[in-house]
Amino acid sequence: MTLFEALGSQIDADRLITDPDIMASYIHDDAEWAPYEMPVAVVRPRTAEQVQTVVQACIAHGAPVVTRGAGTGLSGGANAVAGGVVIAFDAMNAIKEINTLERLAVVEPGVVNDHLRDACAEHGLWYPPDPASAPWSTIGGNVATNAGGLCCVKYGVTKDYVLGMQVVTGTGELVRLGRRTAKGVAGFDLSALMVGSEGTLGVITEVTVKLRPQRDPERTIVGYFDSIVAAGKAVEAVAADGLTPSALELIDRQCLLAVDAWKNMGLSADAEVVLLGRIDTPGEIGDTEAERMLACFNRSGATWSARSTDQEEADALFSARRLAYPALERLGPVLTEDICVPKAAVPEMLARIEAISARHDTHIANIAHAGDGNLHPLLITPHDDEAARRRAQAAFAEIIDNALELGGTVTGEHGVGLLKMGGLAQELSPAVVAMHHAIKGALDPHGIMNPGKVI
Amino acid sequence: MTLFEALGSQIDADRLITDPDIMASYIHDDAEWAPYEMPVAVVRPRTAEQVQTVVQACIAHGAPVVTRGAGTGLSGGANAVAGGVVIAFDAMNAIKEINTLERLAVVEPGVVNDHLRDACAEHGLWYPPDPASAPWSTIGGNVATNAGGLCCVKYGVTKDYVLGMQVVTGTGELVRLGRRTAKGVAGFDLSALMVGSEGTLGVITEVTVKLRPQRDPERTIVGYFDSIVAAGKAVEAVAADGLTPSALELIDRQCLLAVDAWKNMGLSADAEVVLLGRIDTPGEIGDTEAERMLACFNRSGATWSARSTDQEEADALFSARRLAYPALERLGPVLTEDICVPKAAVPEMLARIEAISARHDTHIANIAHAGDGNLHPLLITPHDDEAARRRAQAAFAEIIDNALELGGTVTGEHGVGLLKMGGLAQELSPAVVAMHHAIKGALDPHGIMNPGKVI
Repeated sequence: MTLFEALGSQIDADRLITDPDIMASYIHDDAEWAPYEMPVAVVRPRTAEQVQTVVQACIAHGAPVVTRGAGTGLSGGANAVAGGVVIAFDAMNAIKEINTLERLAVVEPGVVNDHLRDACAEHGLWYPPDPASAPWSTIGGNVATNAGGLCCVKYGVTKDYVLGMQVVTGTGELVRLGRRTAKGVAGFDLSALMVGSEGTLGVITEVTVKLRPQRDPERTIVGYFDSIVAAGKAVEAVAADGLTPSALELIDRQCLLAVDAWKNMGLSADAEVVLLGRIDTPGEIGDTEAERMLACFNRSGATWSARSTDQEEADALFSARRLAYPALERLGPVLTEDICVPKAAVPEMLARIEAISARHDTHIANIAHAGDGNLHPLLITPHDDEAARRRAQAAFAEIIDNALELGGTVTGEHGVGLLKMGGLAQELSPAVVAMHHAIKGALDPHGIMNPGKVI
Repeated sequence: MTLFEALGSQIDADRLITDPDIMASYIHDDAEWAPYEMPVAVVRPRTAEQVQTVVQACIAHGAPVVTRGAGTGLSGGANAVAGGVVIAFDAMNAIKEINTLERLAVVEPGVVNDHLRDACAEHGLWYPPDPASAPWSTIGGNVATNAGGLCCVKYGVTKDYVLGMQVVTGTGELVRLGRRTAKGVAGFDLSALMVGSEGTLGVITEVTVKLRPQRDPERTIVGYFDSIVAAGKAVEAVAADGLTPSALELIDRQCLLAVDAWKNMGLSADAEVVLLGRIDTPGEIGDTEAERMLACFNRSGATWSARSTDQEEADALFSARRLAYPALERLGPVLTEDICVPKAAVPEMLARIEAISARHDTHIANIAHAGDGNLHPLLITPHDDEAARRRAQAAFAEIIDNALELGGTVTGEHGVGLLKMGGLAQELSPAVVAMHHAIKGALDPHGIMNPGKVI
C-alpha cells in the first residue's frame, strides 16, 4: 500500500486534500524565495488521534510530515516537501478551557492568536504574546516558532507563557509534556524544548498557556526622527534610563507611506522614522514614566514628539505597524530580516543596515521591535528582477554577518526555517550543531519531522 | 593510568581533594535518607577549562561526574557516586558582569543567590528567583534544579531568568548555549533543556541571567487561622479574587515554635497556621490590593489579620519562613516534600496531608509557597527510630500519590534527584520516560553525567 492509499483508507475523505490546485494554498508560508514542493496530501485533522494516525502512516512509509498553522511564517518553516504530508491545523481551532482561578487556557493549535486574546478578555484575563501577525497567525505556529511581538519588551515571548502541551512524537506516540500547575520540575523541560523547534521534533496537538490579569490602558508616546540612527539612539536612551516600555516600535517613512497607500489611514509622513512607545504602568507612576520616555526621545534629537491624547490616533499608528509587512508586499517581493542585537548596538546596527542598503543597491525599509533590539529590515525588490533578487539576498546575508559581529542572533522571533539555515550554522559552534543533531536523532529517529529545516 | 592518577597529573594539587575526611563534607546534599557513596576525588575548579579537563578524564575512564553547588538540595541530586568525581563550584563564585543597559548578569555557578541579589541592588537591578535557601544556595545549583522561591508566585522561577549558559557537555566540549540578546530563536532551546536537568546532561560553568529593575517596597498582610484547611481556603480566595501577590506563604505553628526555640525571635504562636501575603504593586492601587487580600483572609475565617505597619516585624516573619527547615532539622531527621497542585486543590490537598499524618502516625509540619500551590509538608521523625522512618517514608509516598490524583506534580521546585525518582515514574507516561532516555543518551553518550539520578 502506498502512503496515498494508506491515508485514503485511514483518514475521512472530508479531512483529506489531494487535489493539487487546492493543495497549492497549503504548501508554503510567507517567506520570500524559500523553496517548497508538492506533497502527497494535505490533511486537516479534527482530533489529536487523527494527527497520530497521519504520523504513524508517515513513519510506516518513511514520509515527511510538515505542520502548518496559518502560513504566516517568514522563514519557510512550513514549506511542504515532496513525498510527504502537510498537516494543516485550521480545523483544530477550539479553545477548550479558560480557567480564571489557575490563570491558564487550553487550546487547539489552530486557534488564532487574536481569538484567544479576545476570549481571555471576556474573563478579565490576557494572553500577552502578540506577534504582528496576531490577527491571522495561530497559537500552534506561535509555539512552534516561539513567536515574539510588540509587548515582549515588557512581557516576554511565547515560551514564557507555555505551561505544557500534547504532542505526537517522532515515534508516533501521543504524549503530554509540561504541566498545568504554577510550578513543576519533574524531569527534563521537554515542553520548553518543543517551543521554537519548528515542527522538527514532533507535532503539537494542544497547548496549555499561562495567562495574566488584564492590564491597565496604555499611554502612547510618539517621536519623529530625521534619521534612523537618531531613532536608534532614542531606543538606547530609553533602556539606559531604566524604563520598561510595554512597547517600543520603530517604523520608517516607507512603511507608513505603503500602509497609507493601501488603507488610506491618513497617516502623517512628516518624519523619516517614527518611534511608537507605550507605557502601561498604572497611575501617576506611569504618567511620570511617559514623561521620561518623551524626554529620552527629545534628548536623542526628536524633531517632534508628544504623548498621544487621542486613543484612535494611537491605535491607528499601531495598526500601521502591524500592516507594514503586508502593505510593502503589495509593492513587490519582500525579503524579511529578523535579527536581534544587544540594545546598546541598535544605533550601530541601524547605521550598518543603511550602508548595506547603499552598497547592494537594495531598497530596505525598516520596522523593528526596537526596544528588544529585534530589527526587521525589509528588503524590497521589483517584480521579476533577477539581478535585484540576487543583490537583496547578498544584502540579507551581510546583515546577518553584521548582527553576529555585534553580538546578536540571526533570528529574534521568526525562526530558522529555510532562510536562516546558513545563518544558524554561522551562529552556533560545531559542537552545538552536533548537539542539535543528537537531539533530532533522539526524538525523530525516522527523520520524518519537517526534514531539511532548521539544521 | 587510573582516574586518580590522571586527575593528579592534570589538576593542580590545591584544586584536588582526595582525603576522605575532607571529601566527606562534599559528598551529599541536604536530602534525608538519600544514599551517597565515597568518590575517587573532589575537584574545586577555578576555571571552565579545569572543569573540561575533569570531564574529559572521566569520559576516558568511564567515571561518573557529580556536580555540586552549596549542597542545600533536598532531593539527593548532588549525592556522590563511587568511582566518580564530585565537581564542587565553591571556588568559581565570580560575578563577571552586571549590565544595566542590557539588564543581565553573567556569573560563575558558585555565586551565592543572595550575593548576586546584593550586587544587582547596587546597580538598581533585581534578580528575582529567591529560594528559601537564597542566603546559602548557588546560582549553578538554582539553575540545575530550576529553583523556585517566595516571589515566584508573581515573578516566575529560575528558568524565566536564564538567558544562556556555558556548559561542558557529555562529550567533553565547552560550549555556549542560549544568548545575551532580549530575544532569540536560533535553534533548539538547549539552554532551557539544561535548566532543571540536575547535572544529568552537562556541567554548567557560567550562567547569563536576565534582571529586572528594582521594585517598590512590599506591603505585608498577615493572617492567623485555626486550621490549615481554612488557610488553604484563603489561598484559593486570593487566587479567585484575581490578585497577584508578590508572595503568599504558609507557615504553621510547629515551624514558628521551632524557629523561635532556635533564634528566640519572639514570634507569636497564637495561631495554628499563619499566612504571610505580600503586595508590591506601587501606589494606591497596591494599597487597594492589600485591602482586598485582607478581606480574602477574613472571609475565609481568619481569627486575626492585619496589614503589618512594622517593617521589622514583617521581615522577622519572612525570616522565620526561611529558617523553618533548618530549625526543624534540629529536632530530628526531616523528610521534605515538594508537591505542587492546582490552586483550587490547595485546601483539599492540605486536608489530605492532615489525614495522612494521622494515618501513618507521622508528625508533619507545613510550610508552603501556598500562592503557587507548592506545598512543603515536612515529615519529622525522632533520631534513630527505624519504625518512624518507615512510617514517614510511607506517608511521603502517599502524599505524592494524592498530589498526582489532584492534578499536581511530584516536585514543584526541589527536583527529582534520588527521592522523587519513583514519583517521576508515576507522573510521566512510559512514552515520555522513553523520550527522557533518548535525550539522555543523545547528550550524555558515555552515561557519566550524574548517573542514577532523575531517570
